[in-house]
Amino acid sequence: MIRSSRGVTTVRATLGHQGLLASALRTREHVFAQIRGVFEGYGFEPLQTLAFERLETLTGKYGDEGDKLIFKILRRGEHEATGEADLALRYDMTVPLARVVAAYGSQLPTPYKRYAMGPVWRADCPGRGRFREFAQCDVDVVGSASPLADAEVVCALTDALDEVGVRDYRVPVNSRRALSGLLEVYGVPVELGGGVLVTLDKLDKLSPDKVAAKLADARSLAPDIAEALVGDLTAADAVERMQTALKDSEAGSAGLDEINRLLELASPRIGEDRLVFTPGLVRGLDYYTGVIFEVVAEGMPGSIASGGRYDGLISFLGGPDVPACGGSLGVERIIGLLGDGGGDAHRIDVAVTMIAEDTASELMGFAAQLRDAGLRTEIYLAASRKLAKQLKWAADRKARFALIYGASDKEARVITVRDMDSGEQTRAPASELAAHLAGVRTSGVAVRRLPPSAQ
Amino acid sequence: MIRSSRGVTTVRATLGHQGLLASALRTREHVFAQIRGVFEGYGFEPLQTLAFERLETLTGKYGDEGDKLIFKILRRGEHEATGEADLALRYDMTVPLARVVAAYGSQLPTPYKRYAMGPVWRADCPGRGRFREFAQCDVDVVGSASPLADAEVVCALTDALDEVGVRDYRVPVNSRRALSGLLEVYGVPVELGGGVLVTLDKLDKLSPDKVAAKLADARSLAPDIAEALVGDLTAADAVERMQTALKDSEAGSAGLDEINRLLELASPRIGEDRLVFTPGLVRGLDYYTGVIFEVVAEGMPGSIASGGRYDGLISFLGGPDVPACGGSLGVERIIGLLGDGGGDAHRIDVAVTMIAEDTASELMGFAAQLRDAGLRTEIYLAASRKLAKQLKWAADRKARFALIYGASDKEARVITVRDMDSGEQTRAPASELAAHLAGVRTSGVAVRRLPPSAQ
Repeated sequence: MIRSSRGVTTVRATLGHQGLLASALRTREHVFAQIRGVFEGYGFEPLQTLAFERLETLTGKYGDEGDKLIFKILRRGEHEATGEADLALRYDMTVPLARVVAAYGSQLPTPYKRYAMGPVWRADCPGRGRFREFAQCDVDVVGSASPLADAEVVCALTDALDEVGVRDYRVPVNSRRALSGLLEVYGVPVELGGGVLVTLDKLDKLSPDKVAAKLADARSLAPDIAEALVGDLTAADAVERMQTALKDSEAGSAGLDEINRLLELASPRIGEDRLVFTPGLVRGLDYYTGVIFEVVAEGMPGSIASGGRYDGLISFLGGPDVPACGGSLGVERIIGLLGDGGGDAHRIDVAVTMIAEDTASELMGFAAQLRDAGLRTEIYLAASRKLAKQLKWAADRKARFALIYGASDKEARVITVRDMDSGEQTRAPASELAAHLAGVRTSGVAVRRLPPSAQ
Repeated sequence: MIRSSRGVTTVRATLGHQGLLASALRTREHVFAQIRGVFEGYGFEPLQTLAFERLETLTGKYGDEGDKLIFKILRRGEHEATGEADLALRYDMTVPLARVVAAYGSQLPTPYKRYAMGPVWRADCPGRGRFREFAQCDVDVVGSASPLADAEVVCALTDALDEVGVRDYRVPVNSRRALSGLLEVYGVPVELGGGVLVTLDKLDKLSPDKVAAKLADARSLAPDIAEALVGDLTAADAVERMQTALKDSEAGSAGLDEINRLLELASPRIGEDRLVFTPGLVRGLDYYTGVIFEVVAEGMPGSIASGGRYDGLISFLGGPDVPACGGSLGVERIIGLLGDGGGDAHRIDVAVTMIAEDTASELMGFAAQLRDAGLRTEIYLAASRKLAKQLKWAADRKARFALIYGASDKEARVITVRDMDSGEQTRAPASELAAHLAGVRTSGVAVRRLPPSAQ
């Protein structure tokens, strides 16, 4: 099973996606820090739960297909032989939030604005943008019915994308109420509504004709209704047609109102050209109750973020009946959109070679001095005593400088500093090593704590 | 099962340890960042693996007791009904490292210096410093037999403790070879050696008499040997006695040499009073082959860090036969040592109230301006329009300032800024809001991205 995950290649420097290596991890850590900074700027507060939940907390919440993708944990000790599971790895960040609100709501502020960042697990067949372990960064507002809450959720997510450096994205917006109004206005029988919406959701992949045919065949919708619906939704002036049509329905009008309110509040920040009413957007049909949105980016299939209002979910999950809205960023897809960037950066600042006998203690002292000055410093730890071999190691480590401390250096009480880019060598007294390196550096700054991509 | 975990109280602001709330999480994130900075300064590179491994990778590696504590994941789909497990949550960071080295060693630098930070899982009975999910921060050097590698591992861990702010700690050091020499010199039969060491390890908890009695009874050691061994190990001059005694054994001499080498290399950094040869230290008997150490701190039972050289482990785990050493910090215990610190800090910088009609868009613009200036800013999202109630909310959120934008403010094109500490109110033009707040602030700086405890 694990071996089949090699198809996942959107994140660079992976080890068969079984492990992430340094450069990919630094980029990732930096992206998390950027996202966290934006979420904190909005006053969202972090909440972290354990990786696993009770199994019954998760089952029945994600539909039949979702249930099959839950990783279940076998009972332990004397119960292991039953072959039953009692715990399960979290499938998203929303259900654990709902469980916490249900159990500890009285200890939480109202409204409660939280963010969560971390892995979720799905027993999916890996490949094509699908992962068995991937990170989600969620913001949610629990306990506010205000349109401002929806606007802040959308803006927090797009601000985070801006901060990370994602540029070419759009934010299609719709409303669950508008979709109900749509079905009503076009005379779709109530019992066919859910299925019709699922098929309409294919309009971004299939031609209008095919969708209309599917509506008539698979969903038993009258062909004239199917054609009118698809025709209006795919017309060049679809938005205007919908704005007119939806006014004939109470739900449709309410939906239009909440969409317009979101556009009004969030457009100044996001841009009118990017935040757009998209009458055919049907995402998260299962539990959304108000506005819905997603973020799509040039060069990445599917969405890189999504969310909406889900006023009924927390009570369905056993919590109090409180309004809520939220959204989620898909970190792997976002990182997939970022360029490589840091390939030529120095991996460490100083490589300390060791060629003379009995100098290990002194070299450790030099290294400590440099590390205290904020320089990433490594000492040669392999067995060779040949300088050429150790300088090759320094080059392989992409060191900015190498220190050489031979017998003659030791006698003269100096250290030779080799610029690994130019090959030039200078000498410095041991006590002034850090200051000397600060002076001799021309371009680089210490990369410590900053990933190459951030420079 | 989950409910029984309430005994865990070393981390503050927990939700029954099912979830960590904001202040505890900020402290934790800050500690991780500090540790990461130190590890990177030493040139260790991050490696991250998935939360789960194949079950057979983990079983048989941690002893019978350890095997029972592995969380196993049920097979999925048509195989779920078998009740069998094929995956398991990682139990530590070392076995996943060994698996990566075994599979991808040729892609890794030699020596390979890696760090890993993240949760591990053990199906332990929670309580008394034990957790079912807890974080480890590991450094390891794979492919170097140099004593410098041991010294760098110990110094990286103690530097991290210094950085985090742990002060009163000691680092007992011993050697697996010295322990072999000890058994040899005192005439302990080879077949009793393992058991004798396990019992000697109790010397920090039981009286010397009780340990000697246990050695004779439970381990079948001749009483005169048991008494001599315990007597010498607990004498005031135990170190001197051991230094003399161990010279009579080849293994003992080699052990003393490697201990002295470590003390020589690492004492200048750590301090001679803290890094001490401790002949009775017997940790990690199972796979350590050279120097071993732990870090113990005033006020925390058990150790907060530990490690040693484990030259045989990677080949035992299916990898190449390469020397290796490493160590691990226990984050929960370290955080338990840190003071509360941030209780009085402002949770957000600016709370934006909303009392006049039709001002939501303007208020979102003010908030965006402040967030762009780095100020943590929240807008009131609940339903009340009463200023007193909203100012109470601002106080509950521990805001430094509150913005008030009433009808008269709107008319005068200004915003009223209330200092939440002094109650004093000033007015500022909308376009100069961020600059005004920067000027009016007396004490605080923006807390964004910095946890209260860091100030």
